[in-house]
Amino acid sequence: MTVSMHAASDGFLYDQVTRHVLDLVEKGTLKPGDRAPSLRGLSKQLKVSISTVNQAYSALQDLGVLRVRPQSGYYVDGQVPQSQQAQLPRKTTNSRKPRKVRFGELFEEIFTVANDPDVVPLGAAVPATELMPVKGLLRATQRAASRHPEKALEYCFPPGNRDLRHEIARRYVDLGLSVDPDDIIVTSGCSEALALSLETVTKRGDIVAVESPTYFSVLRLIERMGLLAVEIDSDPQTGICLDALENVLETMDIKAVVGVLNFSNPIGSMMPDAAKQRLVEMLSQADVPLIEDDIYGDIHFGDQRPGIAKCYDKRGLVLTCSSFSKSIAPGYRIGWVIADRYRKDLMEWKQATSSAMCSLTQMAMADYLRSGEYDRHLVRLRSAYRLQVEKMRFMLLKHFPPGARITSPQGGFVLWVELPRGVDALELVNRALRENISLMPGMMFSATRKYRNYVRVNCGTPWDARIENAVVRLGELLREMDGENAESSSAALADG
Amino acid sequence: MTVSMHAASDGFLYDQVTRHVLDLVEKGTLKPGDRAPSLRGLSKQLKVSISTVNQAYSALQDLGVLRVRPQSGYYVDGQVPQSQQAQLPRKTTNSRKPRKVRFGELFEEIFTVANDPDVVPLGAAVPATELMPVKGLLRATQRAASRHPEKALEYCFPPGNRDLRHEIARRYVDLGLSVDPDDIIVTSGCSEALALSLETVTKRGDIVAVESPTYFSVLRLIERMGLLAVEIDSDPQTGICLDALENVLETMDIKAVVGVLNFSNPIGSMMPDAAKQRLVEMLSQADVPLIEDDIYGDIHFGDQRPGIAKCYDKRGLVLTCSSFSKSIAPGYRIGWVIADRYRKDLMEWKQATSSAMCSLTQMAMADYLRSGEYDRHLVRLRSAYRLQVEKMRFMLLKHFPPGARITSPQGGFVLWVELPRGVDALELVNRALRENISLMPGMMFSATRKYRNYVRVNCGTPWDARIENAVVRLGELLREMDGENAESSSAALADG
Repeated sequence: MTVSMHAASDGFLYDQVTRHVLDLVEKGTLKPGDRAPSLRGLSKQLKVSISTVNQAYSALQDLGVLRVRPQSGYYVDGQVPQSQQAQLPRKTTNSRKPRKVRFGELFEEIFTVANDPDVVPLGAAVPATELMPVKGLLRATQRAASRHPEKALEYCFPPGNRDLRHEIARRYVDLGLSVDPDDIIVTSGCSEALALSLETVTKRGDIVAVESPTYFSVLRLIERMGLLAVEIDSDPQTGICLDALENVLETMDIKAVVGVLNFSNPIGSMMPDAAKQRLVEMLSQADVPLIEDDIYGDIHFGDQRPGIAKCYDKRGLVLTCSSFSKSIAPGYRIGWVIADRYRKDLMEWKQATSSAMCSLTQMAMADYLRSGEYDRHLVRLRSAYRLQVEKMRFMLLKHFPPGARITSPQGGFVLWVELPRGVDALELVNRALRENISLMPGMMFSATRKYRNYVRVNCGTPWDARIENAVVRLGELLREMDGENAESSSAALADG
Repeated sequence: MTVSMHAASDGFLYDQVTRHVLDLVEKGTLKPGDRAPSLRGLSKQLKVSISTVNQAYSALQDLGVLRVRPQSGYYVDGQVPQSQQAQLPRKTTNSRKPRKVRFGELFEEIFTVANDPDVVPLGAAVPATELMPVKGLLRATQRAASRHPEKALEYCFPPGNRDLRHEIARRYVDLGLSVDPDDIIVTSGCSEALALSLETVTKRGDIVAVESPTYFSVLRLIERMGLLAVEIDSDPQTGICLDALENVLETMDIKAVVGVLNFSNPIGSMMPDAAKQRLVEMLSQADVPLIEDDIYGDIHFGDQRPGIAKCYDKRGLVLTCSSFSKSIAPGYRIGWVIADRYRKDLMEWKQATSSAMCSLTQMAMADYLRSGEYDRHLVRLRSAYRLQVEKMRFMLLKHFPPGARITSPQGGFVLWVELPRGVDALELVNRALRENISLMPGMMFSATRKYRNYVRVNCGTPWDARIENAVVRLGELLREMDGENAESSSAALADG
């Protein structure tokens, strides 16, 4: 039985139980070997049924957090090295020099293997298809095709399918945002939304401020478009450091800021809503557009869907990009951008570079969203992603050498791992790839190719023996590399 | 009964009959009022059944070429002004100065109305859905989704679905071209193929040579990317004038040539294969890449599918772009590019700007192509397009003022109309749009905004009363405009 199956059956109540127990363990209230609260006691305390607690405990056992002792009950598992639990990767400091970005072939291979079923998918941030609403979406596709067969084959020119834009606009109401469906431009995934936004607000040679570490596709775009990147210090919990950004805005001619404010990729940080407001006000003052990538916003582990910068945007300077690629169907390529004052110009870019959009998948997505299934699906999905992330974090801490630091994101499904200084993460990635395990090297997330001792780990796939073996093997590889280093150092000493 | 229904039922034999009669009329062998060859005689001469000749004659009657006299047989219709039949638009001469391109809102509205069922679709080059293989393609879509439901939702990263690339490669065998499926990069329609090609081979400020008139999306791309366009004289029958191009290559630092060599948009010219060879050799000598847009290549009215420049490319300098948007499904957005020596760089642009492609429509298209239905469909489609183009040409000559010159393309489905000098085509387009008739003004097809007395007419829709009324009305609008001009001239004379 996989973690995701537990997650799929219960929803919020069940979430509440696992969260409660994980909190007790993470804060050290419950230590390894301690007895977990009794089923009956917790059921009473949290006002949920005993069977819900039972299911949650069973999942926590899968997670490696609890262990069952026959005739005795649940105990906290003693195997997680307690001392490492709270150690997040350090906030990095960045030189304030704008840099050209160079990529080359660094990740050609990682994407080539992304769809290879023989490779353990810890590389690209790809959600497992078993977590996606395959049946629901294909039913919606079938409905759309039978209702409007001709429309499915016809051109659908920008800004895209009106019903879909209406459904997307409707989802912003919960964030207190009133979006006109005509302000939404449908794109081929969030990738195209980001590309069009950057094309619209910058020109060759301009300086763009980005988080550090940054989602590599943004860096790749910056490279391709001949822009310069300034990397802004970012905190693993709260994201872009606003004081650092303010300083950069005062001293440089920044033409745009790009950021994943909710569950940043790779560090998983979430900028508090008050900070988002300060960010928007700061950029508004400086008259600099913000390109916010909200692709992970729906995948929050807490109860509240975090806000977006657009909520605080009074001058139309925020371009909000997103997609359903991480939550419904990567392969349907339904993304969008709300470009506000840049709408007209962005539409022209869209018309020039890719013009019409795939009609059938837009019609299907509109139908799926209208059916109301998405919200129910999201409850299950968020729960599954959270358990996968937590399980991966526990297992990495268990199997990686002491000194590894790992983020503890509140959403999304990637982990950012700081390995001991001196570890060559690219070497680890290459060795792992030879054993059919994919990983992302940290240097891909920086214009200056730093983060050489970091890796990003995808947690989009439900835990299973194959992933467990891969994590164990990664730990072994790290120890092997450490041994070789020690050898070559002592050889060097002997030589010297 | 519409023309397309005749066309759909008969195929090649039937085509042969209509072509034969049209030739006799166009060459003046048969004049208005002459009796058409007898059914029996023609059946014997062309070695086809009497019923095939009968069907063809019935279609020619719909076309307005023949008229039936009860008890007497078929006669050539006397209404087509004989004197205008052979008049093609003149070859234009172009200044050799590289130009910035400016578009603005010129065609925003034309695309906004492109999907509006209330507007007569003579503007955008949109094929009528009734000509598309709706049932066959949706069946293929359904098959693909049921066989591989999970794959339909998964990311499909560049270069795209392997089965689809294999099917596309297979189609080049008939042109004597051996294409490795891995050399094909699937794109979002031909638009994205062209955009990626231009991004790959040029940078801001570079000069690009284009046909004149040129497909407006190419001009739009040139504008957006900050390139300069040099317009090369082109012949309505053979396309880009190679001597003019040679001269430009010798005197300017041209970084790329873009052309629709088969059934150019808008003039419908087809460059003879020998000229294609000379073009490739010339560019090879000059080390300049050719971006060939072959989107209309499959829609040839003659028996032979024309070759492509790629057939003569020994140095990998030709980027061949195409799509199924004009022949199978505009809304499936399946285009591709064979980028040869530029493949790696183009792949990086693709990954940076839109990354993965829609999975389901690629799977469906691969399945549809594999089924073999496409070739049968193409026979019907080419026949339908040809009749629509010929009917439109006849009717425009009939209803437009004397002096109008109209192309006689050998493929594709657009007509390029040169109106009498002094006619403001943009004014005509605006008046027509107010009466729910869309048209493309000629100036959209030039970087220098010339072709002010030209319009492009889409013939993608089977002839019906609505289109006929629209053509009649366009003729009236032209006469009204002429009357107003005459009035204001005489008023000016009176004033003076």
